[in-house]
Amino acid sequence: MKNIKEESLQKHYEWRGKIEVKPRVPVSSNEDLMLAYTPGVAEACMVIHEDVNKSFKLTRRWNTVPVITDGTAVLGLGDIGPEAGMPVMEGKCALFKSFGDVDAFPICIKSKDTEEIINTIKLISGSFGGINLEDISAPRCFEIERRLKAELNIPVFHDDQHGTAIVTLAALINALKLVDKKINEIKVVINGAGAAGVAIAKLLLAYGVKDVTACDSRGIICEGDLRLNTSKQELAKLTNRRHLTGTLADAMKGADVFVGVSVADCVSQDMVRSMNEKPILFTCANPIPEILPEKAKEAGAYIIGTGSSQYPNQINNVLVFPGLFRGAIDAEASTVNEQMMMAAALGIASCVSEKELKVDYILPYAYDPKAHEMVAKCVKNAAIKSGAIRK
Amino acid sequence: MKNIKEESLQKHYEWRGKIEVKPRVPVSSNEDLMLAYTPGVAEACMVIHEDVNKSFKLTRRWNTVPVITDGTAVLGLGDIGPEAGMPVMEGKCALFKSFGDVDAFPICIKSKDTEEIINTIKLISGSFGGINLEDISAPRCFEIERRLKAELNIPVFHDDQHGTAIVTLAALINALKLVDKKINEIKVVINGAGAAGVAIAKLLLAYGVKDVTACDSRGIICEGDLRLNTSKQELAKLTNRRHLTGTLADAMKGADVFVGVSVADCVSQDMVRSMNEKPILFTCANPIPEILPEKAKEAGAYIIGTGSSQYPNQINNVLVFPGLFRGAIDAEASTVNEQMMMAAALGIASCVSEKELKVDYILPYAYDPKAHEMVAKCVKNAAIKSGAIRK
Repeated sequence: MKNIKEESLQKHYEWRGKIEVKPRVPVSSNEDLMLAYTPGVAEACMVIHEDVNKSFKLTRRWNTVPVITDGTAVLGLGDIGPEAGMPVMEGKCALFKSFGDVDAFPICIKSKDTEEIINTIKLISGSFGGINLEDISAPRCFEIERRLKAELNIPVFHDDQHGTAIVTLAALINALKLVDKKINEIKVVINGAGAAGVAIAKLLLAYGVKDVTACDSRGIICEGDLRLNTSKQELAKLTNRRHLTGTLADAMKGADVFVGVSVADCVSQDMVRSMNEKPILFTCANPIPEILPEKAKEAGAYIIGTGSSQYPNQINNVLVFPGLFRGAIDAEASTVNEQMMMAAALGIASCVSEKELKVDYILPYAYDPKAHEMVAKCVKNAAIKSGAIRK
Repeated sequence: MKNIKEESLQKHYEWRGKIEVKPRVPVSSNEDLMLAYTPGVAEACMVIHEDVNKSFKLTRRWNTVPVITDGTAVLGLGDIGPEAGMPVMEGKCALFKSFGDVDAFPICIKSKDTEEIINTIKLISGSFGGINLEDISAPRCFEIERRLKAELNIPVFHDDQHGTAIVTLAALINALKLVDKKINEIKVVINGAGAAGVAIAKLLLAYGVKDVTACDSRGIICEGDLRLNTSKQELAKLTNRRHLTGTLADAMKGADVFVGVSVADCVSQDMVRSMNEKPILFTCANPIPEILPEKAKEAGAYIIGTGSSQYPNQINNVLVFPGLFRGAIDAEASTVNEQMMMAAALGIASCVSEKELKVDYILPYAYDPKAHEMVAKCVKNAAIKSGAIRK
C-alpha cells in the first residue's frame, strides 16, 4: 500500500491533472470562427432563448455532469477541505468519460452550509445535464440531495449513497445464488448509518429484503431512540422491525448477511461464527475492512467482498456511476429513481454468468467495458419504463 | 449573413456541443485505477489538505478557467438568459483550448444579483486557476470583477471589458504608425459607455492617450452630470478634461480617432468629414457597425476597423483571451493588471511587421497561432516584471 501511495503521488505531480477540456469543432479559419463563434452562434443562442430545453440539443449540456463536493467526507479521510477533494473528483471525471462517455467536470464548493451548497448547485445547474454529488458528509448529504431532486428536472445522484447501495445489491443478488437463499427470507445487518448505510438499507428493502437491522457506533438502531439524528430516525422506522436492542454482536447472531460501511476491525471472528450458515460478509471499510478476509474465512465466512482491489469481490461503485449516468442521459431522464437503481444492480449482477459465478467472483471487474454498457442499457430502459423522462 | 446563421444553427444541432472533457490518464486495469483513483489518490488529497496551494500542482486546477456568464449581455443580443448564453461560452472554451491550450469550461449562473453572482463564483473558485467573466451587463460587471479581483488570488478577467480594450489598443498602436501621429497628441472619441467603452477609455489613458472624450446615448459624458451611474461618473472624472458638452457629432469635430462600441448607424458621413486629417474609425457595433465601411471611406476615413470578419481589420478579442490566460497561468499570476494588458496589446501589434502594415491590415488574423503565442509570452513577462505572482 505504501508503494501505491508514493507512486500515485508521483504520478499526480507528473500528470498535473487527470482530465482536460478539448474542442469538438474546427476553429482554424475565418469561416470556422463564423460558424462556431460569432456571428453564427447568435442563432443557437436565440433558439435557446425561445425554448430553454433546446440547451440540451445545441450545447454539450446534455452530456455534461459536474462531480461536486464540499470536501467534508472524502474517501475515508474525512473533512479535508474542498480543494483537497479535487484529486478524487478529477479521478471520477476520468472514469466517467472512459467508461460512460459522460463529460464530467470537478467542482469543489467552499462551504459547509447546506442551504448555500444547494443554492450554489441550483444557480449553476443550467450548464449541466445531471448532477453527481460526491463525498459530502451525512446527514447534510441527505437534505442536499433531497432538495436538489425536488427542485431540478435533471438527474441528481449522490454516489456515496446510491452508487455504494447499487453495487452492494448487485453483489448480494449474485451471492444469494451461491448460498441458495431467498431475498425475502434473509436477515441482513448493516453496520454504519452514514450516507452509504442509509442508502443500502433503503435499496435492499425496496428490492425485497424483509429483515434489515442497522447499527451505528452505539449499536443497534431502534425506533424511539431520541439520540438519533433525522436520517437515522427515518432509518429506525424502516429497519429493525423486531425492535432489537443491543450491540453489533447481538445484531449479527443468526444473520445471513453482514454489510459493513463503517470502520476497521469492528467485527470479531466470534461474531462471524455467530451468524447463520454460509454467512455472506461485505466488509467495505476503507482502507482496512471491518474484519480481514483471511480471518473472516477462518471463522467460516462463505462469501467475502471488500472495498479493496487487493482481495476478490471488490464492491466498487466505479461499476455504477458511469453507466448509470450514461443510461439516464440517453433516456433524457428527469431523475434517478429506485427502479433505475435496481435495474443498475441487476445489470451488474447479470454480467457474471452462471458458469463464471463462484464465491470469489461475484461481480464483474470495475474496468470491464461490457459491465458499464449493461448498466447504461438497463438504466435507460428502467427510466423509460418508469416514466422518469424530462418533459 | 442569413446563410451563416442558418448553417451555424444546423452545425450546432449536429455538433451537440463544441467541447468535451477527456481523460489524460489510463484507467484500463486494476493498477491504473489504484493509481489514478482509490486507494492511491488519497495521498494527493492529503498533500493538498496540508497545503492548499498544492492543488495547483496535483490537479488540473492550474490550467482550468471557467467562462462564466449570467446571460445578461450576450453578444449584441442583450439579456437572453443564462442557458441561452451557453453556445457563446462553449465557443470561447473551444477557442481557449485551440489557441491557448487552456482548459476552459462554460458555467452559466441563474441569477442577476451582483452579490449572489460574486458569492457563487467565490464558492466554486477552488476548482480553477483563473476566472473569465463573460457577457455580464454593465454596470454590474464592474462591481463583480472588482470584488472578485480583490477577494481571489487568481487572475480574474472580464473579457467584454478588457479583451475589447486590449485589441482596440493594439489596433490603435499600429494605425498611428500609418498616420504618423503620436499617442499623446491624438484626440480620441469613444461612443458607448458600457463595459467595453469604460475599459477602452481606461486602457488608452493608461497607455498614454491624453485626450479622450466618451459619449453615451445622451451625448458627451461630462463630470457633474447627476444622471450618470457610478461607473460613468468614474469615467467622467477620467475623460473629457476639456469639459465638453453636446452630442456625439460635437465630440467628433477635430477628433483623430473614433472608437464605437455602441449601436448601428449612429455615425454620419458628415461626422466623419468633421474629424481631423487621416481619421481612424474603429466601428465595432455588432452585427451592423456605427457606419458602414464603404460609407466611412467615401467620407474620408483613412483607416477603418470593425467587429466583423467580413471587412478588413477585424477588432476581435479572440486575439486576446487565449494568450492572455496562457501567459498569466504560465507566470502563476495572481491577477491581470494594466501592465499585462498593455503588454498583450503591444504583443498583438508586433505581429504585423512594418513591411506588412497597411491601412487594410493593421492586426493579425484571429486564428493565427503565432499571435496567440506572442500574447502569451508578452503577458507572462509583464506579470513577472510587475510582480503580479501568486504567493
